[in-house]
Amino acid sequence: MFEIAILGFGTVGSGVMEVIEKNSDMISQNAAQDIRVKYIVDVRDFTGSPYENLIIKDFSVVENDPDIKVVVETIGGAGVALDFTRRSLKKGKSVVTSNKELVAAHGYELTQLARDKGVNYLFEASVGGGIPIIRPITQCLAANKINEIYGILNGTTNYILTEMVKSGVAFDTALCQAQANGYAEANPDADIKGQDVCRKICILAALCFGRHVYPNLVSTEGIESVTLGDIGNAGRAGYKIKLLGRAIHMDNEQIAVYVAPHLVSEENLISGVEGVMNGIVVRGNAIGDVMFYGAGAGKLPTASAVVADIIDAAKHVNARKWLSWADGSPDMIYDIDLLENAWYVRTSADTNTIKRVFGEVSVISGCKDGEAAFITAVMSKRQADTLFKELPALSSFRII
Amino acid sequence: MFEIAILGFGTVGSGVMEVIEKNSDMISQNAAQDIRVKYIVDVRDFTGSPYENLIIKDFSVVENDPDIKVVVETIGGAGVALDFTRRSLKKGKSVVTSNKELVAAHGYELTQLARDKGVNYLFEASVGGGIPIIRPITQCLAANKINEIYGILNGTTNYILTEMVKSGVAFDTALCQAQANGYAEANPDADIKGQDVCRKICILAALCFGRHVYPNLVSTEGIESVTLGDIGNAGRAGYKIKLLGRAIHMDNEQIAVYVAPHLVSEENLISGVEGVMNGIVVRGNAIGDVMFYGAGAGKLPTASAVVADIIDAAKHVNARKWLSWADGSPDMIYDIDLLENAWYVRTSADTNTIKRVFGEVSVISGCKDGEAAFITAVMSKRQADTLFKELPALSSFRII
Repeated sequence: MFEIAILGFGTVGSGVMEVIEKNSDMISQNAAQDIRVKYIVDVRDFTGSPYENLIIKDFSVVENDPDIKVVVETIGGAGVALDFTRRSLKKGKSVVTSNKELVAAHGYELTQLARDKGVNYLFEASVGGGIPIIRPITQCLAANKINEIYGILNGTTNYILTEMVKSGVAFDTALCQAQANGYAEANPDADIKGQDVCRKICILAALCFGRHVYPNLVSTEGIESVTLGDIGNAGRAGYKIKLLGRAIHMDNEQIAVYVAPHLVSEENLISGVEGVMNGIVVRGNAIGDVMFYGAGAGKLPTASAVVADIIDAAKHVNARKWLSWADGSPDMIYDIDLLENAWYVRTSADTNTIKRVFGEVSVISGCKDGEAAFITAVMSKRQADTLFKELPALSSFRII
Repeated sequence: MFEIAILGFGTVGSGVMEVIEKNSDMISQNAAQDIRVKYIVDVRDFTGSPYENLIIKDFSVVENDPDIKVVVETIGGAGVALDFTRRSLKKGKSVVTSNKELVAAHGYELTQLARDKGVNYLFEASVGGGIPIIRPITQCLAANKINEIYGILNGTTNYILTEMVKSGVAFDTALCQAQANGYAEANPDADIKGQDVCRKICILAALCFGRHVYPNLVSTEGIESVTLGDIGNAGRAGYKIKLLGRAIHMDNEQIAVYVAPHLVSEENLISGVEGVMNGIVVRGNAIGDVMFYGAGAGKLPTASAVVADIIDAAKHVNARKWLSWADGSPDMIYDIDLLENAWYVRTSADTNTIKRVFGEVSVISGCKDGEAAFITAVMSKRQADTLFKELPALSSFRII
C-alpha cells in the first residue's frame, strides 16, 4: 500500500482522484502496489462529496505523517504551493505537480532540494497536459544533443487562431467563442498574452539545455496583434499562423528563447495541430525532428500525466530520477533581436517601395485593397527594424 | 566505466558506435558514468576501420566476460540473434536491441528470461526507429487503459504512397524510385507486403494490452493493390491512403490486430505523415489521442534509440524495468472479419446498382470512365463481402 496526499481539489486534483479510481487495476499493476489517497488538502468544504472524509484543511497533518510518501500538488500558482512543496520535500516526500508556474519560477531550487533529500520532484503534467514530453526528452532522447525545441503549447490561443481560419471570425469574436466553450478563462490574459506558453517553454528549455531559464528573461508576445488579414495572407502563401514557444541552442552556447506568433509552413506537420490540441517538436542531432501531439489541457488528460508520475514515484521511492538542471542567469540568454529568419510583413506600401527597401521578396497576391504582404529574405529583427523605418509594417511575424 | 559489446556491425551497429562517440559528454552525464564499447562481434573483417582492434568473431568472449554488463544486439533476424540474446541474458547481462523480428517472435520468452535473471531486455529502437514510443507507452501512459493503437510504421511503403500522391506515378514506378533512393531494399517484400508493419504492431499490441501477439495470427495486407485511381478517388473525398498497423482492445477482451491500407481523413493529423516518416497514435481512456512522429528508420535515429536504452540499462543495472507481458494464444485474437467500419469501394458497377445493393452511400465524383467509387455505411468485412457478391469490387479499403 502506497499512501499519497492531494493538495488542492480543483479540476486537476479531482481528475487525479477520478483516474486513480477508474483505472485502479492497471495502476496497481504498473506501480507494483496499491495506491491510496489518504488525504485531500483544500481550504474549501466539500460537503456531500464521496471524498468528504478524506478532506482536511491543515497541511501540517500531511507534512507530519510519515506514511505519506508522495504529495500531489495541484494547487497552482507560486504562493502556498511553493511553501507546501518545499516543506514536503524537506520532509523527504516526493512531490508530483501539474503547476507550470511554480516549476518555471522555482524549478531549479525545487529540483535541487529534491536531489539533496534523495526524493523526486516530478512535473510531466506541467507542459503539454497529458502529452508525454518531459520523460521522452530526459530518457528517450538522452543520447541526443538537442538543438531546438518549439511547440504549440497553449490550447486557448490555438483554438482562437483555428477559429479565425475556419470560421473567418476576428480575434475578439473567436475569444468570446473560446470563453463560451470553456476554452478560455474570464480573464484570458495569461493565455492570449503568451505568459502561459512562456512558462512552458522555460521548463522545456531547462530540460533540453540543462540550465534554468527564468520567465522574466524571455521575450513574450501574444496573439492579439494577429488580424484576419494576416491569417488570409498566410493561408494564400501556404502557411498557418501559430503561437509558438521556441528555444534554440545557439552556436555561442547561449539559448535563444521566446514566445511569438509565427507563420508555419503547411508542409510542417505541426501546422495541422488545430483547436485546443498541442504539438511539440524536438530536434536532436541524431534523431532529427520528432513531434509529440495530444490534448494540452483538460481534466483527465492532465490527471493521467500526474498519475503516471505518481506511479513512477512509487516505483522509485528510494531512487532519485536525476531530473534537474543548473541555475540560469541573464548572460546565457541570446538576444533574439539577432535571431535570423525570413519574415512575413503586411504593409500599406506599394510594390515598388517594397522592392526598393527589401530587395528581392516573395509578394503574396490577393491582399485587401490598399495593403500588400510579402516574405523577406532571411534577416535578423534588428535588420528588419531598420528597414521598417523606411517601410512601416502593419504587422510582421517570423517564419519557421 | 560501463562496458558494453555490440553484436553486428552493420548500419545500426555502426550508428550506435557513431552516436556514442559523437555525444559522449552528454551520454556520460545522462548515464552518470562513462560508457565504453569493449567488443564488436561480427563475422566480417573490417580491415582499416578505426574500430578494427575492437572487432572479434567469437561471441563466447563476450558471453564469458563478467565486465560486460550490456550486450547490444543489432544483428537482426531470429537465428543467431536469438541464440546470442538468450545466452547473454542467461549470463545476467542486459540486452538492448533494434531487432523487431526477434521481439515480435520471441519477446515473451526473452522478457521472461530477463525478468528471471533480474536484468533488462530493452527494444525502444524496434518500433518507430528513433521515435520515443515504447517508454512513453509503458511509463507516461501507465495511468491509462489503452483502447487502441495504430500507426504508419513503415517508411518504405509510406514513401511509395506519398510519391503516388505527389508525383502521380503508379506503384511500380514509385517502388523503383524508393529503391533508387535507398528507401527500399532490392527485395522489398517484407516492406510492401506488410510483414515489417506486422512485427511492429505485434510488439505495440503486447505492450499496450499485456499479452504476446504472434505475427502468424495477424491478418496482413500490403500496398500492392493500391492503384493511382484509388489514390485520386480518396483525395477527392478528403482522404489519404496509408498503410496502417492497428490493434484494438475489443469489448469482449479480445484484441483485433491487423495490417492493411486505410483511407485516413485529412482531418486526422496522421494523414500528414509523409515520405519515410512514421507516426503512431495511442488512444487512452484518460488522455484521449496522443501521436508520436519522427524518422521511423535510418542509421542515426535508430542508433539514438538504442543508445537511450543503453543509458537506461546503465542506470538500472541492478533494477528490473518491468518491461514484460503474458504469453499469447489464438483465442485472444478477434476475428477482424467482424470488425466494423465504413468502407471505400471502387467498382465498375453503375450508381443504380450501387444504391440497390449498398443502400445509402456517399458517392465520390470524378472517377475515371467506367468506374465508380463510394463510401459505405459502417459494416463488417463479412457483411461487405456478402454485398460484393452482387457488386464486385475492384478494390475496397477500411476507413479510419
